[in-house]
Amino acid sequence: PEEPVLEGQPKFDGRVQPYKDMDTFPRRHIGPSVAAVEDMLKVLDPPVKSLDDFVKEVIPPDVLSDRSINIPQGATGEADLLKTLKGIASENKPFINFIGCGYNGTKVPEVIKRNVLENPAWYTSYTPYQPEISQGRLESLLNFQTMVSELTALPIANASVLDEATAAAEAMTLSLNALPMSRQKRANKTFFVSNMCHPQTIAVLASRAEGFGVTIEVGDVLADNCKRVEELGQDLIGVLAQYPNTEGGVDNFRTLAEKVHKNGGTFSVATDLLALTVLTPPGEFGADVAFGNAQRFGVPLGYGGPHAAFFACSEKHKRKIPGRLIGLSKDRLGDSAARLALQTREQHIRREKATSNICTAQALLANMSAFYAIYHGPNGLKEIAGQVIGMARQLQAAIIEAGFRTGQRGKMDNSPVVFDTFVVETGDKTQELLKALEASGINVRPIDANHVGITVDEATSADDAKLLLEGFSKVGGKVSSSNLQEPVSVEPPTDLKRTSPFLTHPVFNSYHSETELLRYIYHLQSKDLSLVHSMIPLGSCTMKLNATTEMVPISWPEFAGIHPFAPDWQAKGYKTLIDQLEGDLAEITGFDAVSLQPNSGAQGEFAGLRVIRKYLEQQPGSKKRDICLIPVSAHGTNPASAAMAGMRVVPIKCDQVTGNLDMEDLKTKCEKHSEELGAIMITYPSTFGVFEPQVKRACDLVHQHGGQVYMDGANMNAQIGLCSPGEIGADVCHLNLHKTFCIPHGGGGPGVGPIGVKQHLAPYLPGHPLIKTGGEKAIAPISGAPWGSASILPISWAYVKLMGGTGLTQATKVTLLNANYILSRLKPHYPILYTNEKGRCAHEFILDVRKFKDSCGIEAIDIAKRLQDYGFHAPTMSWPVANTLMIEPTESESKAELDRFCDALISIRKEIEQVEKGEQPREGNVLKMAPHTQKDLILSEWKRSYTREMAAYPLGYLKEKKFWPSVARLDDAYGDTNLFCTCAPVEGAGDITGSMAPSPT
Amino acid sequence: PEEPVLEGQPKFDGRVQPYKDMDTFPRRHIGPSVAAVEDMLKVLDPPVKSLDDFVKEVIPPDVLSDRSINIPQGATGEADLLKTLKGIASENKPFINFIGCGYNGTKVPEVIKRNVLENPAWYTSYTPYQPEISQGRLESLLNFQTMVSELTALPIANASVLDEATAAAEAMTLSLNALPMSRQKRANKTFFVSNMCHPQTIAVLASRAEGFGVTIEVGDVLADNCKRVEELGQDLIGVLAQYPNTEGGVDNFRTLAEKVHKNGGTFSVATDLLALTVLTPPGEFGADVAFGNAQRFGVPLGYGGPHAAFFACSEKHKRKIPGRLIGLSKDRLGDSAARLALQTREQHIRREKATSNICTAQALLANMSAFYAIYHGPNGLKEIAGQVIGMARQLQAAIIEAGFRTGQRGKMDNSPVVFDTFVVETGDKTQELLKALEASGINVRPIDANHVGITVDEATSADDAKLLLEGFSKVGGKVSSSNLQEPVSVEPPTDLKRTSPFLTHPVFNSYHSETELLRYIYHLQSKDLSLVHSMIPLGSCTMKLNATTEMVPISWPEFAGIHPFAPDWQAKGYKTLIDQLEGDLAEITGFDAVSLQPNSGAQGEFAGLRVIRKYLEQQPGSKKRDICLIPVSAHGTNPASAAMAGMRVVPIKCDQVTGNLDMEDLKTKCEKHSEELGAIMITYPSTFGVFEPQVKRACDLVHQHGGQVYMDGANMNAQIGLCSPGEIGADVCHLNLHKTFCIPHGGGGPGVGPIGVKQHLAPYLPGHPLIKTGGEKAIAPISGAPWGSASILPISWAYVKLMGGTGLTQATKVTLLNANYILSRLKPHYPILYTNEKGRCAHEFILDVRKFKDSCGIEAIDIAKRLQDYGFHAPTMSWPVANTLMIEPTESESKAELDRFCDALISIRKEIEQVEKGEQPREGNVLKMAPHTQKDLILSEWKRSYTREMAAYPLGYLKEKKFWPSVARLDDAYGDTNLFCTCAPVEGAGDITGSMAPSPT
Ligand SMILES: Cc1ncc(COP(=O)(O)O)c(C=O)c1O
Ligand SMILES: Cc1ncc(COP(=O)(O)O)c(C=O)c1O
Ligand SMILES: O=C([O-])O
Repeated sequence: PEEPVLEGQPKFDGRVQPYKDMDTFPRRHIGPSVAAVEDMLKVLDPPVKSLDDFVKEVIPPDVLSDRSINIPQGATGEADLLKTLKGIASENKPFINFIGCGYNGTKVPEVIKRNVLENPAWYTSYTPYQPEISQGRLESLLNFQTMVSELTALPIANASVLDEATAAAEAMTLSLNALPMSRQKRANKTFFVSNMCHPQTIAVLASRAEGFGVTIEVGDVLADNCKRVEELGQDLIGVLAQYPNTEGGVDNFRTLAEKVHKNGGTFSVATDLLALTVLTPPGEFGADVAFGNAQRFGVPLGYGGPHAAFFACSEKHKRKIPGRLIGLSKDRLGDSAARLALQTREQHIRREKATSNICTAQALLANMSAFYAIYHGPNGLKEIAGQVIGMARQLQAAIIEAGFRTGQRGKMDNSPVVFDTFVVETGDKTQELLKALEASGINVRPIDANHVGITVDEATSADDAKLLLEGFSKVGGKVSSSNLQEPVSVEPPTDLKRTSPFLTHPVFNSYHSETELLRYIYHLQSKDLSLVHSMIPLGSCTMKLNATTEMVPISWPEFAGIHPFAPDWQAKGYKTLIDQLEGDLAEITGFDAVSLQPNSGAQGEFAGLRVIRKYLEQQPGSKKRDICLIPVSAHGTNPASAAMAGMRVVPIKCDQVTGNLDMEDLKTKCEKHSEELGAIMITYPSTFGVFEPQVKRACDLVHQHGGQVYMDGANMNAQIGLCSPGEIGADVCHLNLHKTFCIPHGGGGPGVGPIGVKQHLAPYLPGHPLIKTGGEKAIAPISGAPWGSASILPISWAYVKLMGGTGLTQATKVTLLNANYILSRLKPHYPILYTNEKGRCAHEFILDVRKFKDSCGIEAIDIAKRLQDYGFHAPTMSWPVANTLMIEPTESESKAELDRFCDALISIRKEIEQVEKGEQPREGNVLKMAPHTQKDLILSEWKRSYTREMAAYPLGYLKEKKFWPSVARLDDAYGDTNLFCTCAPVEGAGDITGSMAPSPT
Repeated sequence: PEEPVLEGQPKFDGRVQPYKDMDTFPRRHIGPSVAAVEDMLKVLDPPVKSLDDFVKEVIPPDVLSDRSINIPQGATGEADLLKTLKGIASENKPFINFIGCGYNGTKVPEVIKRNVLENPAWYTSYTPYQPEISQGRLESLLNFQTMVSELTALPIANASVLDEATAAAEAMTLSLNALPMSRQKRANKTFFVSNMCHPQTIAVLASRAEGFGVTIEVGDVLADNCKRVEELGQDLIGVLAQYPNTEGGVDNFRTLAEKVHKNGGTFSVATDLLALTVLTPPGEFGADVAFGNAQRFGVPLGYGGPHAAFFACSEKHKRKIPGRLIGLSKDRLGDSAARLALQTREQHIRREKATSNICTAQALLANMSAFYAIYHGPNGLKEIAGQVIGMARQLQAAIIEAGFRTGQRGKMDNSPVVFDTFVVETGDKTQELLKALEASGINVRPIDANHVGITVDEATSADDAKLLLEGFSKVGGKVSSSNLQEPVSVEPPTDLKRTSPFLTHPVFNSYHSETELLRYIYHLQSKDLSLVHSMIPLGSCTMKLNATTEMVPISWPEFAGIHPFAPDWQAKGYKTLIDQLEGDLAEITGFDAVSLQPNSGAQGEFAGLRVIRKYLEQQPGSKKRDICLIPVSAHGTNPASAAMAGMRVVPIKCDQVTGNLDMEDLKTKCEKHSEELGAIMITYPSTFGVFEPQVKRACDLVHQHGGQVYMDGANMNAQIGLCSPGEIGADVCHLNLHKTFCIPHGGGGPGVGPIGVKQHLAPYLPGHPLIKTGGEKAIAPISGAPWGSASILPISWAYVKLMGGTGLTQATKVTLLNANYILSRLKPHYPILYTNEKGRCAHEFILDVRKFKDSCGIEAIDIAKRLQDYGFHAPTMSWPVANTLMIEPTESESKAELDRFCDALISIRKEIEQVEKGEQPREGNVLKMAPHTQKDLILSEWKRSYTREMAAYPLGYLKEKKFWPSVARLDDAYGDTNLFCTCAPVEGAGDITGSMAPSPT
């Protein structure tokens, strides 16, 4: 195969081959030039002659593959690639949509699109684990939480979950957890779900209920004055209803709520943020949980995702809320500051006792939705809601005029639509109508043989409405669309009408001009460190380049404008792209089939384990194979996913010295659980950053005992082109496209966690109730949309195509080199926790700083915070080993950047030494006081053991380029005990951006 | 007419009119809400009841018009507008271009497009007049200068001029200025121009030569061993040749250079940066000046502009170089820092003695080109050049094979093309060929009835080449395109081959990976204050919102991909857009015809005056009407433009008390010069920020004496919808679309300076040699491209359409209110220089700070620099009155922002008072030491009369949101005496971004 063109290689030597692309990508993606690689190989300890020799020292010989990836390499330049992709995109036909069903048209304000969605300073940041350099997106996520909390009238809201359907599942688990243990253990425990919920929500619930042994009962929750709720008695876990429901009905749930509560259950409501600007919010009619899709707040349809789902709950459930929660706390100087709250609820801590595995969520989309609310403000949102109701009512009246009955199924009484959706009884004219509409480029929702659903939204235009009515006219009586624009009453029925105010905080009332919003966006942005500033060496997170060419297509209307339930022939471009990407990922991983449905790595784990279980169920054998072996070093989502899939987790020890799997322990456990062995979950290279030599043996062992091998592919960046899960022996593996395949982290999401499987598992890949996808014996869906977060798949597609097999392989080699280069430079200064017998790590390694706690009281957190003063994001802290730092540079970092980072850590080592030697005090030294803010340095009376200069500019480059933390070190304990998860009251907010400007003199 | 929807107006009241757009624009563009306007009217001194009453106090009754602008208002929202515009854009048909002629295809690196061209932090900044908060773009422009200087091998290069054709004109004037005065005065002084220059260059030269009394002689400059150069003797001003020339020939100019020099002339060369990577640079064969279009370095064709033209010259001409020049100097702390050098050369100082009127230039495009060079580096650029040569040679060979002769006209000897262009003798097959090519979507350059030109570029693909050859095959012999990709020698002839290195500075060799480039772009960006941070209250500059929706379309390929000399039927979308925009601007200004050709305000002035002169020449009367009356308060470009148009400037006094035109003086001058009176140039409202009551009388007076009225429309933002140049009595007016009509300033350009004219002047509107435009008796072109900077016209088009007549009028009212609000708040604290008899200013006003010089030694510059510490850009300094500050807020600023700005100035007034009272010293006080950098506050030993806190956080809001100057106050004198205009040598550059990282330990 042709070699990729790398930086430093091309030479102009008098003869050229014309039409060779000059904008080839591997040299843009890979940081070190050819010359730098040479230099780095020499600096390695011990030095190596060539990159290939080096690779042989890193990867065990029986793991290293000689297969080369068969993907034509990126000889095609970036410009050509975009042309090709435009061709694929143009196979998509975005129709005018009246489909609804949880996904609506929206007008993305251009100022938000350009400055958030298309802005690397927003999309390349990581989850705000380091609050001092993340206050911008933390404030924005707090705005999101405030928006959700006020619109739902529930006090606690989180910073987004993956989608509406999984939010329903989270509501179910929260309800289960809220029960006394005795009730949790009942055999027939039942979650009672309204048949008026979206079908995809019900399908995803089914997939989640299984593992918890929960029965999902779908029915009319209000029937006979909620009789069934009472009947369920102690078996009731809770009730889920939808408001407005999937067919547009809006019911008064007060009585239902009372009955659920009386019966000790939890009442959850799937809802719509726009509707809540005019309808009584769930918190005011007794709901304990409210959730839904925030997509219509300024996030494109994108064929189903990514969008931010929201999740809110009452005070009493606040410590059970799934996903990430932003809370206010105080910093060292006593100033208010936001950070991730209640981290102790997360899976790392609860592991196999966790009932949620959400890790990556939808931060970027949540931010977009929050800015949308800020841009429109409460009045603007209400106005949009009014428009939507008005349009729906006019359309309904016209369709009635055409001779059709409207309403919801079972209630076709033509009473005025309350919000945005109604059903039309089209009877035997249904097919004819659908044909007529199709000819005009219109999609409605085909509900059954005799009914269609109509949903309008902010983006519905008068022309769209006219076309729709023309369709109805063709098959029914004549209607005129001339009175479409006449004023119409949009009042909801009195008992459903919202009377309480919302979004009263200044943040929702100050930035309605574009200038003000733009400045607010940039002000927040200025507080956040992202890849536009410096390396983010977070181990296990793979913070590589998210190239612009990869990002550009996701804004194209051909990708952004497709409804997930549009007929498949309208989405041929997506199909081409998805087929190619699945094929390429299968080629890369050595698997036979791939599903792109899971929208995070953790969702991939859950999907993969469910596929395994389904497969195992079909095999001969008397016992349930529900044991899942998981090394103690595993990422917290592994045991959490296993538990959610209904598996019993058995931990496998790791060798204390090498970090490798304890093969003896593995053997013992395999033998012990032989008949019940379902799977092993292993991460490769291990979470300790080492290519374990015994991995194939471990796979064999598990297979011998009838188990399947699940590989966590978070570390796939270390494998591509050099080895593969399929060849190593895995049966399933998830990939994090938001790590290895260049989807940006977006400040904590979105992500895509596809799974690859061997042939025998392919029939079980997840399906979908509305759109054909997955295997013939498909498990129930993992996500609400058939292909999860489809609209960001072009990113990974473009990456793979631009790099080609050889480019990808080269990237892997350099990613290994970059990690080992840092390791070699730091080894004289810090202990390194685990390496292989050649002293090499994989693509990441653990810096062991534990001894400093004894020697001078310095802990990993102090080093992490001090790194901020040097302009760097901290490595992964205290995972997988407490009080250590795990460093992963990726191939995109140049030697110059790696050197700056090493210099920073070496300089910090000297600062530690000063404390060790007693030259600096154990408390109040430059590490303990880190990070240092401008305010701290400028305002504080200076009585410290170090100078201001030492605090701010410990190395020379900082005088030229310095990123400042915007707050001093956060007090986590204070925040968790005084949980406060909405925007700070105005007194605290200060006069940030003018809302508090003094009145005129 | 319908009223625009304003922020704070819409209410949700139970009934709605469906399909009313919710994303209406006036409320997004205009800063203050309806409620804020109410509040502000009350704060005015004296207060006013209504906005309309207020307007009557500002605008004289006989000037205030009751005509309302007939442009349908922006009921259409932003999303709809983009749909409409997409429809217009799709009328454009971007062909594959082999036209060349100064405009080439290029691949804009996506990382640059997104993060520079599409980034408001880059495009909304102003010309870097305040270097301390502009170091980012200053460094980038220095990179541009370095790139040009090294590629041309000439020591001094400027920071861009408007286009290649005007650059030729600047070369001519520089040559003229370089002559001894005696030769400058010769009647037959001649600029000898190669007939192998681009035709548009020669046409623009003609338009410029007239005013200077220069004869342009076009001919073969090398003929008979340069005989004509010798013949011209003392009449020779200089010679202009093109290299490579317009037909692709590359000549050795060494002998020519010697002969020009021997004859005391200046040798200028129009050239191509890409060619100079492989060809001997002009500086090495004796050129004194080299210039050209930098467009092919990463700036789209855009139907002709905007692009950055470059201009370089030898050491001896450095103080004559036109346009802006960035130079290095030192700041207060002794650190190296960049700033605008040699400002004393500019027109403000030289006025009617100026020979160049360049003010707005092409900063944003220059930055794009510089980043392009940084991204590719010297090797990458050379490789691209090699490709281009290779492609050209392969094509040439194939076309010869098809039976055609190739070369340049007069030299069709089939010798191998040296760079990218060759001419084909197509004889009687020309029309057939053109038809065949058209059918394949291909443009070549039709040179004459028997010849076509072929130019290839970086964007030419093998498919393009195949299509081209198929066309030739159809009309000639068969050629195969199968060997197109075979290696080919691309060596230039030895005597033309470049041997010297270029772009050796680390900046061109460190940022070749996308990650590194992205961080470099963001690092520079972080040093610049722009509209994303705060108000930029520059008087006369109109720093209003550049809305995203306005900006989005300029990246569309339908606008970006059209060659300016493409047949007009391929540019129908542009035609529609241009016609509509011209119509709307005529409606707004009260004129009959508009030309969009001038690409800056100053170019508009020059165009307008030439139109006037041409008109006057055609009128009866024995004397030349060449007197131009210009008030002493006029912007420096006015007298400079008049001089360039060959007019004699007679200054008109202004009243010392009111600032108004001295009507007596005007009358006297009119009478005195009655027979020779050509024109008056007036700015309205005046540059003092007042609507002069006598303006109509002044116009009448000039008309009575046979003169024409030229209005400088820089202040048009104060007029729209309330009065108009046409109704006031002007015959011509230029508009700055980059002020009033929302084209962003781009850090110093691009701009568009259209002129509107009354019917009698319409026949003279500028034409173009290659494309039909302008009036029937058109003057020679002002710009190289028929519609100047066509690709940014969608911005102004969108603004006008989004606002509609009523929105635009509302904006004008608020712009007047905003200025008067600040005036009223500041009046108790500072003297205001001029107001009308009601105490009102127009859209801007002058803060008179002159008295502080006496009272305590504080000057305008100290206040300007101190404002930086408060997070604000300074108002316009010392213009139009020395040592004052002129403040213009625009309608886009909210009340909150205006209040912050007023608070800052009031707080500064208190700081001044402390110096006046002796509480602070006259030297070394917080104003004199301003601005304060982080380094200054953190590193300095603190022995000042004020605290660090007072320096950094004089007001509370700064603790939340603080923009830091990146260097301390600049030393201008040092820089001008030690002129240094390329990148700093490496020792000085420090370890900014890693190129200097320490080597591994
Ligand atoms: C090893 C490992 N497994 C699984 C995950 C979970 O992936 P996600 O965050 O996409 O759910 C992570 C995330 O960082 C991880 O590092
Ligand atoms: C009053 C006035 N006239 C003319 C000009 C020149 O316009 P341009 O910079 O576009 O050449 C300006 C620019 O600031 C100006 O303020
Ligand atoms: O997000 C992680 O847990 O790494």
